[in-house]
Amino acid sequence: MAKSKQKPIPPISGTKVPRFAGPSTFARLPELRDVPGCDVAVLGIPFDAGTSYRPGARFGPQAIRQASRHLRTQFHPAYDTEPFTTLQAADAGDVTCNPFSIQEAIGQIETAATELLSEVNAIVSLGGDHTIALPLLRAVNHHFGQVALVHFDAHLDTWDTYFGAPYTHGTPFRRAAEEKLFRDDASMHVGIRGPLYSRQDLVDDRELGFKVVHCDEFEAEGVDAVVARIRERVGNHPMYLSIDIDVLDPAHAPGTGTPEAAGMTSRELFNVLRGLAGLRLVSADIVEVAPAYDHAELTSLAGATLAFEIINMLVRSPEIARKR
Amino acid sequence: MAKSKQKPIPPISGTKVPRFAGPSTFARLPELRDVPGCDVAVLGIPFDAGTSYRPGARFGPQAIRQASRHLRTQFHPAYDTEPFTTLQAADAGDVTCNPFSIQEAIGQIETAATELLSEVNAIVSLGGDHTIALPLLRAVNHHFGQVALVHFDAHLDTWDTYFGAPYTHGTPFRRAAEEKLFRDDASMHVGIRGPLYSRQDLVDDRELGFKVVHCDEFEAEGVDAVVARIRERVGNHPMYLSIDIDVLDPAHAPGTGTPEAAGMTSRELFNVLRGLAGLRLVSADIVEVAPAYDHAELTSLAGATLAFEIINMLVRSPEIARKR
Amino acid sequence: MAKSKQKPIPPISGTKVPRFAGPSTFARLPELRDVPGCDVAVLGIPFDAGTSYRPGARFGPQAIRQASRHLRTQFHPAYDTEPFTTLQAADAGDVTCNPFSIQEAIGQIETAATELLSEVNAIVSLGGDHTIALPLLRAVNHHFGQVALVHFDAHLDTWDTYFGAPYTHGTPFRRAAEEKLFRDDASMHVGIRGPLYSRQDLVDDRELGFKVVHCDEFEAEGVDAVVARIRERVGNHPMYLSIDIDVLDPAHAPGTGTPEAAGMTSRELFNVLRGLAGLRLVSADIVEVAPAYDHAELTSLAGATLAFEIINMLVRSPEIARKR
Amino acid sequence: MAKSKQKPIPPISGTKVPRFAGPSTFARLPELRDVPGCDVAVLGIPFDAGTSYRPGARFGPQAIRQASRHLRTQFHPAYDTEPFTTLQAADAGDVTCNPFSIQEAIGQIETAATELLSEVNAIVSLGGDHTIALPLLRAVNHHFGQVALVHFDAHLDTWDTYFGAPYTHGTPFRRAAEEKLFRDDASMHVGIRGPLYSRQDLVDDRELGFKVVHCDEFEAEGVDAVVARIRERVGNHPMYLSIDIDVLDPAHAPGTGTPEAAGMTSRELFNVLRGLAGLRLVSADIVEVAPAYDHAELTSLAGATLAFEIINMLVRSPEIARKR
Amino acid sequence: MAKSKQKPIPPISGTKVPRFAGPSTFARLPELRDVPGCDVAVLGIPFDAGTSYRPGARFGPQAIRQASRHLRTQFHPAYDTEPFTTLQAADAGDVTCNPFSIQEAIGQIETAATELLSEVNAIVSLGGDHTIALPLLRAVNHHFGQVALVHFDAHLDTWDTYFGAPYTHGTPFRRAAEEKLFRDDASMHVGIRGPLYSRQDLVDDRELGFKVVHCDEFEAEGVDAVVARIRERVGNHPMYLSIDIDVLDPAHAPGTGTPEAAGMTSRELFNVLRGLAGLRLVSADIVEVAPAYDHAELTSLAGATLAFEIINMLVRSPEIARKR
Amino acid sequence: MAKSKQKPIPPISGTKVPRFAGPSTFARLPELRDVPGCDVAVLGIPFDAGTSYRPGARFGPQAIRQASRHLRTQFHPAYDTEPFTTLQAADAGDVTCNPFSIQEAIGQIETAATELLSEVNAIVSLGGDHTIALPLLRAVNHHFGQVALVHFDAHLDTWDTYFGAPYTHGTPFRRAAEEKLFRDDASMHVGIRGPLYSRQDLVDDRELGFKVVHCDEFEAEGVDAVVARIRERVGNHPMYLSIDIDVLDPAHAPGTGTPEAAGMTSRELFNVLRGLAGLRLVSADIVEVAPAYDHAELTSLAGATLAFEIINMLVRSPEIARKR
Repeated sequence: MAKSKQKPIPPISGTKVPRFAGPSTFARLPELRDVPGCDVAVLGIPFDAGTSYRPGARFGPQAIRQASRHLRTQFHPAYDTEPFTTLQAADAGDVTCNPFSIQEAIGQIETAATELLSEVNAIVSLGGDHTIALPLLRAVNHHFGQVALVHFDAHLDTWDTYFGAPYTHGTPFRRAAEEKLFRDDASMHVGIRGPLYSRQDLVDDRELGFKVVHCDEFEAEGVDAVVARIRERVGNHPMYLSIDIDVLDPAHAPGTGTPEAAGMTSRELFNVLRGLAGLRLVSADIVEVAPAYDHAELTSLAGATLAFEIINMLVRSPEIARKR
Repeated sequence: MAKSKQKPIPPISGTKVPRFAGPSTFARLPELRDVPGCDVAVLGIPFDAGTSYRPGARFGPQAIRQASRHLRTQFHPAYDTEPFTTLQAADAGDVTCNPFSIQEAIGQIETAATELLSEVNAIVSLGGDHTIALPLLRAVNHHFGQVALVHFDAHLDTWDTYFGAPYTHGTPFRRAAEEKLFRDDASMHVGIRGPLYSRQDLVDDRELGFKVVHCDEFEAEGVDAVVARIRERVGNHPMYLSIDIDVLDPAHAPGTGTPEAAGMTSRELFNVLRGLAGLRLVSADIVEVAPAYDHAELTSLAGATLAFEIINMLVRSPEIARKR
Repeated sequence: MAKSKQKPIPPISGTKVPRFAGPSTFARLPELRDVPGCDVAVLGIPFDAGTSYRPGARFGPQAIRQASRHLRTQFHPAYDTEPFTTLQAADAGDVTCNPFSIQEAIGQIETAATELLSEVNAIVSLGGDHTIALPLLRAVNHHFGQVALVHFDAHLDTWDTYFGAPYTHGTPFRRAAEEKLFRDDASMHVGIRGPLYSRQDLVDDRELGFKVVHCDEFEAEGVDAVVARIRERVGNHPMYLSIDIDVLDPAHAPGTGTPEAAGMTSRELFNVLRGLAGLRLVSADIVEVAPAYDHAELTSLAGATLAFEIINMLVRSPEIARKR
Repeated sequence: MAKSKQKPIPPISGTKVPRFAGPSTFARLPELRDVPGCDVAVLGIPFDAGTSYRPGARFGPQAIRQASRHLRTQFHPAYDTEPFTTLQAADAGDVTCNPFSIQEAIGQIETAATELLSEVNAIVSLGGDHTIALPLLRAVNHHFGQVALVHFDAHLDTWDTYFGAPYTHGTPFRRAAEEKLFRDDASMHVGIRGPLYSRQDLVDDRELGFKVVHCDEFEAEGVDAVVARIRERVGNHPMYLSIDIDVLDPAHAPGTGTPEAAGMTSRELFNVLRGLAGLRLVSADIVEVAPAYDHAELTSLAGATLAFEIINMLVRSPEIARKR
Repeated sequence: MAKSKQKPIPPISGTKVPRFAGPSTFARLPELRDVPGCDVAVLGIPFDAGTSYRPGARFGPQAIRQASRHLRTQFHPAYDTEPFTTLQAADAGDVTCNPFSIQEAIGQIETAATELLSEVNAIVSLGGDHTIALPLLRAVNHHFGQVALVHFDAHLDTWDTYFGAPYTHGTPFRRAAEEKLFRDDASMHVGIRGPLYSRQDLVDDRELGFKVVHCDEFEAEGVDAVVARIRERVGNHPMYLSIDIDVLDPAHAPGTGTPEAAGMTSRELFNVLRGLAGLRLVSADIVEVAPAYDHAELTSLAGATLAFEIINMLVRSPEIARKR
Repeated sequence: MAKSKQKPIPPISGTKVPRFAGPSTFARLPELRDVPGCDVAVLGIPFDAGTSYRPGARFGPQAIRQASRHLRTQFHPAYDTEPFTTLQAADAGDVTCNPFSIQEAIGQIETAATELLSEVNAIVSLGGDHTIALPLLRAVNHHFGQVALVHFDAHLDTWDTYFGAPYTHGTPFRRAAEEKLFRDDASMHVGIRGPLYSRQDLVDDRELGFKVVHCDEFEAEGVDAVVARIRERVGNHPMYLSIDIDVLDPAHAPGTGTPEAAGMTSRELFNVLRGLAGLRLVSADIVEVAPAYDHAELTSLAGATLAFEIINMLVRSPEIARKR
């Protein structure tokens, strides 16, 4: 879809319709079918059959949309953006994924995302477990070639198989590396912490093309140093963000499948993202929000706010700006 | 809107799209704007400024819609109905109500419901606190004249004022009686229990035109006897149902503003409703679902199932059948 | 204290001060120090060191008082009473009990209750775990002699010792029987269910002077038959009620220390109590509300409503009426 | 394994080790490896990849074992049994199931259960979602031939496929019928309620060999009438019980994947089971306990108590008594 | 009321009465009516009709008082104070506010606070939603003239109207500025973060007389730098603190109406307050604690601890010390 | 028990048995009875009768074990250790403690721990309330002489008595000092914060031999400075760690008995521990996890991860390495 030349259709305003009323789309944006052209689509991917411990991320997209009612979206001072008057965003609904077949679901996601990227300039995907990053990277690779993958997570997610299963929420980036979907000279994990399955894990991971920002580095060096490292590594390549909500400390994101103590605060995470503004972000996903373990929308609100931060990053992305 | 002569557009099927995915409308029905004509509209009324104790029913419509994903809706054996192939139902979205002005909100609801009843044959309203029953009865009265009001509730809701306020969730039926919106020879409270503000309460209530089925009568006489009493009282008049979820025992509906111990089971309530099938039901409301006090969707699922029961009653209502 | 000849000081009215505001006394009654004479005192006993499984009943009195804000207390149609204009009720605060010494706490409770019964005509005690029934029975025995004990509970609570400890929440009625605090020809357990520590349990229990109404009898025979059995057994003796909240089904009272499936509904329990109106009730306790396991005040509201039911029973008790 | 001729090794006593301490086996029974022979094994099957809505039954076995600490197990007055001195029971641990392959998991369960039934006389399986009933029925069929299947559930679970998947928690009894694992002249569903996918559902179900006790029959006819119907249908055939915890009302079992309003109380369910004592019960499963949606162990305690009821039924089963 | 020359009556000691027992006043302080004179009154203002999203702050005062039982209050090392032997503090109960009329409630609060400030030297108000800051500032202005307003919040709360309503929890400081209740050369917002309704918001806000400490400055500059900025801005003016609990990160204060990710830790907030010790604090409020969304008293404990911190600041305030 | 010369038996691998299945031991380690020799034993001490406010730590050991299923344990990069192939660890089950006699329970714990330390080289104890630190220190003192005690806690726990009780969770280190169980020249409290019972508290505490790292020092000086202070104080003495989970901020550990705002993050705590690697750690306890107040395993996961961190510290401890 060629981008719309018209003035974007904005979300329903919270000053006209109370935020607890009105449409259940992300940030009360219009549905994709209701806009003449779309720059950024928010896409739900309710799939969690790849989960190794606490399941329930299938309810993530709904919970994040519900929490997104909290957002005031007109002006973001940290990015100096008015995103929804600058570009057209819309909610593209949910991908239909077979909950009983990981393989079929991966195919459904890849197809849906690839087709959607023919219509829109960027996707912000709401998971769903981390398995979905693989088909999303395939779709992104199809449209943008190899990307710099910046992966926020407590865990590497580059393991080989679980119980013989090659496609799970612990293995997407191993598969993606094998399929050469991302650049091995420009990709990073950020927020990694905790013990591993083997001393070999970090070695293998490095060979797949990742550098690691360990979570403790935030304690030791602060946000700015981390931002500088990421910017240097990513450079001018098209960048894809994959954010596992468990990169946040369980205090900030209890509603997830494999929480890991000693994580990032949401303030640190948002400040890192803001530090990456201006890079060539092309699309992103936010995964592993499992509402059954959430409390008072803590985790889903973090997810919703992250999605909105990313939309503001997209406003500032040269890649997206060029196509507007 | 003249009713559609076309085959109704059904909800999204749970065998094609997982129930945790897809649209957030009630029972995943089409939106009102997407159907050529509509028999029954589900209408959210997210308003709770009339609440005297635990607020939060403003989040009721969303929570009931979310819980309605649980429903299998093709065939209801208790009514022997296939509701969504028999009539066209649709989700009419939410009424925009001013949360800071009870009076203005009542006007907004009355207007919205009156207009909607010009388009559709019946409304199932999802509250919101019980204040909303007043403007809904006004709208119903406008279209159907005086109705037999069957009111399921732990409380009479015929008090005069609270702190001088005439319009609250404890007073709608006093105001409605003053406005002569319902028949004083055919109306009932069902499920009343617990202590009262005064010995006079029951006297006053009787003078407003109500008979009472006390909740203990279910224990003593059983469902069938109660059904018979209601049917006899209502007779062949057009009937409006107003169901405060707190008619259920707190064990069945913890998520409400003024729970009252020793209530009905959901099985009793559903059986009463089924016993009323065939009466001239014209519209209904389900109110006082306050999700912040709910657990595991217990209350919102009860609310969603009630809404679906009522839709099946509407299929069996001569009033609605006649207009299909 | 001679009972007051004055018009009773009533609770704060919910029509003048919102129920979520104002004093934290039971039902917003006056404090004991603020009334010139008192018929019925509500007494908190925050003690739970006798608990064998889930502790936390120490927070019971506060939680019940908080939930009692829900109550409308002017007129109770089931008893045809206006309790707080008929007798003077007041909140006597909490007994100070040593949480680290069961023996010392029992002494403190006995002393406090005995003294209080010199001032007032009846006590409704809010536990606390069931250990407190022993010192309360001592105090009642001191003032009223041997009482007919009607004990609502899932469990017999007539075991001998746990880990050598004679005073626990599983043993109060064994000790009370040894001390001959209640009549062995007029006492009953109601609501007993579930497996036992030994086949001998029921034999021993019978020898202590109890008859048993098993919980299943409500399913099989209904409330009225049970009421008749209790009334016959109690006769014209002064009656003491000890109500373990776990007599209710866990669906109705999750917030308790040793829940037992397949229990009574609150409607059944209230109807039994109403059936006992007119008997010579002299005092009562409600125990084992453990708020940490409660949800949405389900259990504490049941406790508060029970306390209010009992106050109405006291209005109807010849024993108390005589002294007013 | 030949049954032990020795005196059974009982569970740890709650009078010697506090129930909140000690082993995490079911009811603090010995592990299977620690008994010389075993009559009844409790087997965990932590599998939930066949779930269509709220997942999480993979945590069911652990939660039920934890809740089983509540049980007093020496003497059950309703069955007049001292189960753990009459037969040897033990906890057989968990079956290892592949969470990423339904087919492989079904094979693993079938193998494990078939082997275990060579060692022990009966299995009480703790799910897991209802998918597991299929391999369990295969194993039971292998040892006992076609059984009378008595299936307690809100739902029929005889649907054909979901999204093309033949093996899910909604389809086990269709597959079992195709494989002729149960008798089509002696099987029943009990507790069915709610709407269906199609008018054809009940027809199809009947052709597979089921009679239905609808949940409303408990309201209308009472427990005894239902018990009589089941006993007549089952007759003297070996009987297998499959109990989906959602047969209970959501108020009694919120912690499950597809709750359905208007269900059975736990008191009704236990009384039905007690009514079936003396039939030739050979094994049983309890499925769909999803702890993430539970509160205060309500659901897992119901599950644990059910398992203990079933063990008492097994003591009374001629089939098991014969082999002791 | 002239301040008492007597030795202050202290709270009930936790070494004499267990903290889970005894009066429900703030920190178990005496009631105002029980002290001969009072320096600092704690005042509950249970009002939330001005809430735009999640309501429930009407239960804030009770929840904060309940959580205040946790406090040990004899000696505060960070302030080097023994507050309750230095000044007389007391609990003044709750203001009665009409929940159905924002305007009437504002008048009731203004009157109550103005009268109370004639009796006592300072008030620590417990909200309630942020609407209450307006009448509190009016009362403070009446007694102290224009104050330096230091406002801790995630949000500016200087918006003009919502749905035409001028008095809501998002507008108090706009109204207060119009009424010139605070100094426009000495006031600040601290902890502001997140997106805004418009680019104009910050401009308007500045014109009303505020400087802003953005929440990210804590990450970048640390607590001491922020303290220095506030001290410089406030100078020697009488200071009023208004603390919206949502200034804390949702991880620290989930129980609030409009949580905003990426907030302050409670450690940062307390350290800022301690840094302000010695300034001329005259009164303060703590608002927006909404217990229905809280967990394990996390938010209400933060509120209670804040209130106690403020009382210690008042001990150190020259303004209050002078009047003691 | 002489340490095993054999290759250690490791935990069940999460790649072979899903982490939600299999044994309920800590980290799915073997039981003590199943290993030929043991270096480090994990010991549950389910005792909470010494609790002054919110009870429930009796359920701590089970909850921590359950949360320990989350752990991946093969390789810990922060310690560069493969703990379970380096030393033999095992789960020693629970100490049986009398819940009704603090004195008897203390004796039972002392005996059990002393005997266990004859068999194994170190114990990681899982509480239970902090009372248990006294008997554990006695046992450690018996085997290792006076230790350097490093105590992480929000509170000093060196008070004298509560209600006359000398042995409670607020007094263990006063008693331990009196019994000279730890070195008065090498011991510290870390994380202390909040108000105190008296100005004298800190003086008394100092005289007992403690230095204090106040929690605010983490804000002001950072982790490294604190680590340096502890290392200098402890020196080369055998070190015992006693960690009250309430040293963490309530946001990180809501599930505890006496939460205190403004605490440490889990990241800070883990980094301090890692900074202490290489010191002569001999044993440790983790206490005050009270699951009834936890959410989504936040607190129990922190406890489980702490226990695993400590096991890694023990691998690095010269004291333990020497004995391997």
